[in-house]
Amino acid sequence: MQSARVRVLRHRPEGAHPDDDLVAVEAPLEIRVEGPDGPPAQLAVTMRTPGHDAELAVGFLVTEGIVRSPSDLRGRVRSALPVEGRGDIVTVPLAVAPDPERHRRNFYATSSCGVCGKAALDQVEVLAPRLDDRLSVDVATVRSLPERLRAAQATFDATGGLHATGLFDLSDRAPLVREDVGRHNALDKALGRRFLDDPGRPVVAMVSGRASFELVQKCAVAGVPVLCAVGAPSSLAVALAERLNLTLVGFLRGARFNVYAGPQRITDLGGVTRRGDDL
Amino acid sequence: MQSARVRVLRHRPEGAHPDDDLVAVEAPLEIRVEGPDGPPAQLAVTMRTPGHDAELAVGFLVTEGIVRSPSDLRGRVRSALPVEGRGDIVTVPLAVAPDPERHRRNFYATSSCGVCGKAALDQVEVLAPRLDDRLSVDVATVRSLPERLRAAQATFDATGGLHATGLFDLSDRAPLVREDVGRHNALDKALGRRFLDDPGRPVVAMVSGRASFELVQKCAVAGVPVLCAVGAPSSLAVALAERLNLTLVGFLRGARFNVYAGPQRITDLGGVTRRGDDL
Repeated sequence: MQSARVRVLRHRPEGAHPDDDLVAVEAPLEIRVEGPDGPPAQLAVTMRTPGHDAELAVGFLVTEGIVRSPSDLRGRVRSALPVEGRGDIVTVPLAVAPDPERHRRNFYATSSCGVCGKAALDQVEVLAPRLDDRLSVDVATVRSLPERLRAAQATFDATGGLHATGLFDLSDRAPLVREDVGRHNALDKALGRRFLDDPGRPVVAMVSGRASFELVQKCAVAGVPVLCAVGAPSSLAVALAERLNLTLVGFLRGARFNVYAGPQRITDLGGVTRRGDDL
Repeated sequence: MQSARVRVLRHRPEGAHPDDDLVAVEAPLEIRVEGPDGPPAQLAVTMRTPGHDAELAVGFLVTEGIVRSPSDLRGRVRSALPVEGRGDIVTVPLAVAPDPERHRRNFYATSSCGVCGKAALDQVEVLAPRLDDRLSVDVATVRSLPERLRAAQATFDATGGLHATGLFDLSDRAPLVREDVGRHNALDKALGRRFLDDPGRPVVAMVSGRASFELVQKCAVAGVPVLCAVGAPSSLAVALAERLNLTLVGFLRGARFNVYAGPQRITDLGGVTRRGDDL
């Protein structure tokens, strides 16, 4: 349930009239992890748009460096349906008993960051090794991303209140698109789906908003070497992208875009390619 | 320091050329509270745009319900200058020894929310009593807010990467405007400034982005009864606004806007007025 109907008073130049409107749903999700011998432990609570909750939980665990390979997961992710007065809970079974204290520290030190920019960059570097240059993407493909993302998003978002993330692979297929009131959640949902399907699949990420430190971190930790944003990047996003050799594109609108880091991956060759795939 | 110069490769229809660009600075700030007998205790770390850090810290404490009146503060807020490898720290001296554990729970239960939407709404209701109807604002004034906010913001933001909050009082004076890469930080900075100057000053808030649950909470706890947003509200923002009798305006663009809650405060009378001020 991505949208909810509400009553609204529409003020227009000619006067005001009551009407119905759709708004994006924002609701809390509790993410729990559970070792082989249980019990589940609460790891985080996030305000998200309901839908793809299991992907969101897995994506969050991956991009925070808590889950690193499919063998770290044990069985299927359980998603509790909303219960009156309890809300939504997703439990992710892990192969090894989780250490919530370590994970909390981990999460705190990276996503909420740690005390200074340098410490924050150092922390992410531990989680995300420097990205290699095998994947490249041509200028025409970069230019096509916003329209392809919008085309996919228009199907879903009738509220104007959702952020979208698209993951584009080496083919001309429609992107994997996920939406959320939180842009980090939209990215986590998409990266969670990719992790469950094929964690090594080479993709380029495109987000509908701005590029923050946190979004660069999540892409780098998940092994996505190119992040394109409709909006502006922040200073720390640029610094982290340079440090991890991630290609960071901002203000991508029509034929115009700015490359803030990793320009070597954007070429005049056709499409998205990856060297070494045929070896 | 709100912006930083970076090197960029600008791709344009006619080709690519290297250039300089300005990006919004994003850097961590550690917020500490300190009782009369010390020592300081860490309360939160947030990614923010440097500048007005003391206001941000005070605003955060106010909108999270930790500081409720000026007498809860003790002396001047100390802001540590950035130290190599340490980053930015603001210490807020409190009149009563803080209880970081309670505050952390508090913060967790409201801002990061608590497990379900109903619990989240209940939590905020404890912090924020229902708002009264004394303040009203006329349609023409509502329509004027985006342009007045943009006019003030254009002076500062050369990066396109900052969110802005404006607080408009009962006069025609220029609004109190604060900016940040994080929209909740921009609001906290403005509300912190108002709290330090005159906590009871009646104002209307206008934000450059979307209206989330968290922004409605912050306005309500600070006693601001009208929140206008350029963008869309979320479902939980509407629910909280209705519950606390806050006027929530969304999609405010030119002469058009939607009222999602508290329509009674928007009148055809002139300007922003408050009944009872002359009693």
